[in-house]
Amino acid sequence: MTEEAKKLAAWAAINNHVQTNHVLGIGSGSTIVHAVHKLAERVKKENLNIVCIPTSFQARQLILQNGLILSDLDRHPELNIAIDGADEVDSDLSLIKGGGGCLTQEKIVAGCAKSFIVIADYRKKSKNFGEQWKKGIPIEVIPMAYVPITKRLTNIFGGVTELRMAVNKAGPVVTDNGNFLLDWKFDKLHNWNEVNIAIKMIPGVVETGLFINMAERVYFGMEDGSVSVHEKLVH
Amino acid sequence: MTEEAKKLAAWAAINNHVQTNHVLGIGSGSTIVHAVHKLAERVKKENLNIVCIPTSFQARQLILQNGLILSDLDRHPELNIAIDGADEVDSDLSLIKGGGGCLTQEKIVAGCAKSFIVIADYRKKSKNFGEQWKKGIPIEVIPMAYVPITKRLTNIFGGVTELRMAVNKAGPVVTDNGNFLLDWKFDKLHNWNEVNIAIKMIPGVVETGLFINMAERVYFGMEDGSVSVHEKLVH
Repeated sequence: MTEEAKKLAAWAAINNHVQTNHVLGIGSGSTIVHAVHKLAERVKKENLNIVCIPTSFQARQLILQNGLILSDLDRHPELNIAIDGADEVDSDLSLIKGGGGCLTQEKIVAGCAKSFIVIADYRKKSKNFGEQWKKGIPIEVIPMAYVPITKRLTNIFGGVTELRMAVNKAGPVVTDNGNFLLDWKFDKLHNWNEVNIAIKMIPGVVETGLFINMAERVYFGMEDGSVSVHEKLVH
Repeated sequence: MTEEAKKLAAWAAINNHVQTNHVLGIGSGSTIVHAVHKLAERVKKENLNIVCIPTSFQARQLILQNGLILSDLDRHPELNIAIDGADEVDSDLSLIKGGGGCLTQEKIVAGCAKSFIVIADYRKKSKNFGEQWKKGIPIEVIPMAYVPITKRLTNIFGGVTELRMAVNKAGPVVTDNGNFLLDWKFDKLHNWNEVNIAIKMIPGVVETGLFINMAERVYFGMEDGSVSVHEKLVH
């Protein structure tokens, strides 16, 4: 059921947005798998010329396994579109991302794209952050600074901040950039744009999992088999 | 002459600010060498209890070679004082740092200190940035993002941005955090607080070498053998 919803969202995004000669950012996560399958099908059937930029090791493997053209931001620093999933999407189309630990690369790639398109199943849709996603806001930090950053986050913004621990090795999760991840479990709603800036300005913070004013359009695969499309309101 | 000026500034800072039971941040660079020597002398002579937190490999070695107590931010996340040099200090006591490539660790340590004290020789003192320091503002970036960040810096803020290349190996300088360094040579004066925030918010930027509203007091060793002390004006 959830898998079907992910597939619907992924297919809609690939069908509606991808054109030949596009440079395309490929996100990470389980929903992206469906997007890459659909993309590979369209590329083959319609003979499209598409270059793909990965946001993670997983994305890179998906691109290669599906016979798509792999590139990077050195060669293609400007993307037409980036497509990615999200852990939670609020009613402003702000996102929490980073459950998979690739938030920094995902934000870099999304930030290089003219359009950033999000695909997700209905469980990711909420009015306010925290209604669906209970694991907090991921924050990538320089390892030497994790203790003072943890203290500062809790002192300034409240809630609880945890160092994300690894499962298949002793010690903390180390990101693909060699850093640690904090998960900040906030205890009230905030002005997320202000909080995002305040957190990123803390010395030692590499990136936050708050994606504010970045998503242009979100496709939600719904339980009833429909796709719900949300666009950013222009303020 | 310059070495004498560095020594004067370093000695003044150590004599005026260091007390027993302090946790002390030790910066990087040539001026810091004199500070650590003076610190070791005072610790021995006065039997002071001082714990030192390094900002670089160089600082760590200096602490160990001078028989001082080495710690880290995991054990001591709150510092009484951090002492560091600077590449340039403007009339607002804003700093450019990062010529030595340790800007991120230096900003992390300074940000954990109740007081951040800067020591420098007279050549680092200017009214406006760029009068003395010609190598631009160092910016530490995630390697995969260096091309789009370079383009974005130049498009938004003008000037020229260069990837810092290594001297004793082929390819770019790699920081102690595994990242690249950009040197942004600005072509006009900016509101440095705004520019610092705007640059750090670019996805893939780990830290900037702009230290705004951080230095509490700057000791300049002057050509005539005097020490010129500048304090932050409270606005």
